[in-house]
Amino acid sequence: MAIAITLLVLEIGVPHMDPGESLGAALGEQWPSYAAYAVSFLTIGIIWVNHHHLFSVIVRTDNTFLILNVVFLMTIAALPWPTALVAEFIREEGARTTATAVYGLNMTSIAIMFNAVWRYAARGHRLLAPNADPAGIHKVSASYLSGPITYLAATLIAFANAWVSLAIFAALALYWLIPGTGPTVELLRGPGGEERSEHGSAG
Amino acid sequence: MAIAITLLVLEIGVPHMDPGESLGAALGEQWPSYAAYAVSFLTIGIIWVNHHHLFSVIVRTDNTFLILNVVFLMTIAALPWPTALVAEFIREEGARTTATAVYGLNMTSIAIMFNAVWRYAARGHRLLAPNADPAGIHKVSASYLSGPITYLAATLIAFANAWVSLAIFAALALYWLIPGTGPTVELLRGPGGEERSEHGSAG
Amino acid sequence: MAIAITLLVLEIGVPHMDPGESLGAALGEQWPSYAAYAVSFLTIGIIWVNHHHLFSVIVRTDNTFLILNVVFLMTIAALPWPTALVAEFIREEGARTTATAVYGLNMTSIAIMFNAVWRYAARGHRLLAPNADPAGIHKVSASYLSGPITYLAATLIAFANAWVSLAIFAALALYWLIPGTGPTVELLRGPGGEERSEHGSAG
Amino acid sequence: MAIAITLLVLEIGVPHMDPGESLGAALGEQWPSYAAYAVSFLTIGIIWVNHHHLFSVIVRTDNTFLILNVVFLMTIAALPWPTALVAEFIREEGARTTATAVYGLNMTSIAIMFNAVWRYAARGHRLLAPNADPAGIHKVSASYLSGPITYLAATLIAFANAWVSLAIFAALALYWLIPGTGPTVELLRGPGGEERSEHGSAG
Repeated sequence: MAIAITLLVLEIGVPHMDPGESLGAALGEQWPSYAAYAVSFLTIGIIWVNHHHLFSVIVRTDNTFLILNVVFLMTIAALPWPTALVAEFIREEGARTTATAVYGLNMTSIAIMFNAVWRYAARGHRLLAPNADPAGIHKVSASYLSGPITYLAATLIAFANAWVSLAIFAALALYWLIPGTGPTVELLRGPGGEERSEHGSAG
Repeated sequence: MAIAITLLVLEIGVPHMDPGESLGAALGEQWPSYAAYAVSFLTIGIIWVNHHHLFSVIVRTDNTFLILNVVFLMTIAALPWPTALVAEFIREEGARTTATAVYGLNMTSIAIMFNAVWRYAARGHRLLAPNADPAGIHKVSASYLSGPITYLAATLIAFANAWVSLAIFAALALYWLIPGTGPTVELLRGPGGEERSEHGSAG
Repeated sequence: MAIAITLLVLEIGVPHMDPGESLGAALGEQWPSYAAYAVSFLTIGIIWVNHHHLFSVIVRTDNTFLILNVVFLMTIAALPWPTALVAEFIREEGARTTATAVYGLNMTSIAIMFNAVWRYAARGHRLLAPNADPAGIHKVSASYLSGPITYLAATLIAFANAWVSLAIFAALALYWLIPGTGPTVELLRGPGGEERSEHGSAG
Repeated sequence: MAIAITLLVLEIGVPHMDPGESLGAALGEQWPSYAAYAVSFLTIGIIWVNHHHLFSVIVRTDNTFLILNVVFLMTIAALPWPTALVAEFIREEGARTTATAVYGLNMTSIAIMFNAVWRYAARGHRLLAPNADPAGIHKVSASYLSGPITYLAATLIAFANAWVSLAIFAALALYWLIPGTGPTVELLRGPGGEERSEHGSAG
């Protein structure tokens, strides 16, 4: 995930200037590249934060779980490509719709696979910690269902108006930056329920 | 491995449209790139799952083992290049055979090196945990032998018909997605034999 | 961070030689690329050393902290792009100013987000180890404030003279290479206060 | 290091075929790219094995050590660029010498920084484990001195004959693949002296 997120920048090229054009103007024309970079980066970043949160309660792995993770990562690693597609074709009427739809389908696939990974781990507490909180697990499972539905809806809207669709993707990425909107459900019971980082005290 | 897998997407370019062509048609023409991306990604992903499984029983390293791993990773890191080669030349009669053969040779090299890494660690339980299960180790060693043979055979088939060869590579990648086809052999004896993830309980 | 730093080299291309030109001369003309590579690499490297130092005292994470880190990493991951911009346009009068200003704004954003990440963790010792030293924490917080101010000032200077601005960015990167200029403030109290690496003794 | 090593493949492009040329012939012409890929990959791989060996005895870090590591990694991360340079210009008389010299200088810088990182850690056992073996430390320090000297000599030979110089770089990379040529000096005393991997027993 860290690698996919960092590769995004490679899709932003150094601009070519027309004769007599200033670099400032050339950079200004490139704005779809910057916007697409930020939206894709933040979206993967937020998925990463949620993934991190879930792995505080997932304490085992098995074969099927790893394979599901491979497919999940395949959908994430693919994102730089539709990101470049949207940045390239956002100004062209017909192509804009196609590029946005491809981007949306990739986003929807990510959301579906994220659910698949979590649901596989959570079903019957298959891979969860013994002190996993059933109520919290249930709440999280329910809340994640809205992801694929929202992204699929935003993708379908692209066929009516690609701008509205893109605005929804951007709004979703920005929304999660607001403090308090992230994963707040407590997944573990008891005094050990507080999430800890992987950093030990050096004392 | 995670890096090689993520770099694959860089080989899929933004399509160039001929005048009057729609983006949808241009994307459709790029299908070999997407297929090659998915097959290579899934293949490396499945190797990674198997590698992970083996490292539950490999608890030491030595010099030769690390060098073997370097050569193994060299064959994996090279894969984005023949992947791009196949995607580029799949539509051209003569070049298709050459590109497929190069792809197949890379796949065969990966399978050979995977065996070399494992066999070096497993011979006389050289680098294995004290509670490694001899029967499980033997079974895994035998089953991995089929890898280089299968991939070499699929590579040779390319000289008769490259499409058949490519179909075999794709089928092998998809086959391992079926639940229950992955590494199921128990490598450790006793109550500690259950595979654990690297994630500790947060409780 | 390790990934962004390593991707920088991809922005240095193999030079094109004019007819009759030697490779030595063509490489000589590419000097802005090498200089920009070194300055950006060292700057990210020094941020990484400081980040490592701070994480010896940060022992918890929460949601907002992770999101702040995502935005911080977004500013770092973007750096290869303005680095390439400066290398490309350093020889052109007007474009040089614009390219340097973009580079400086990216540097300033990194410095601001670095402060935000640290201040969020340190406020009221929110995410710090129990034996964090209040005096050391306070000193570090105060000293990091100079980062955004210095980089913003150097960015504004670009509009008067881009060369001076670039010289300041280079000087700041080289300054931190001098032994004794790095993070020396003790962040933990007592006998356990000495910073330890993550490497355990093999004995 | 893992990232720099994996990026090397991006410098091998899909070949352009002249009209009437077969893909096999076009690939054959690209052999310098494959040779340069293998030599650079194996060289970084061997450095990584040695680095891993040394870090079994280095158990602390400090500021200067981290900065030295940043500069060391900068020289390694730069290697894909001279690798591409050699692959591109190996067939042109004058440019071959320049490209080989640049490659050799990068190799020499890596060897110098590797020594600097180790010597800083080992001087007066500054960052070493309490049970570090003084005789072993001394032997390793002495043996690493030959690295910068050998690579500098091979670089200077490029000005007489670039092919000889390149053959030495290739021979050095292949030499270390021979079992028993790697880091065999025992760095730790006593029963805990055996090198362990970072993988714990799952039992």
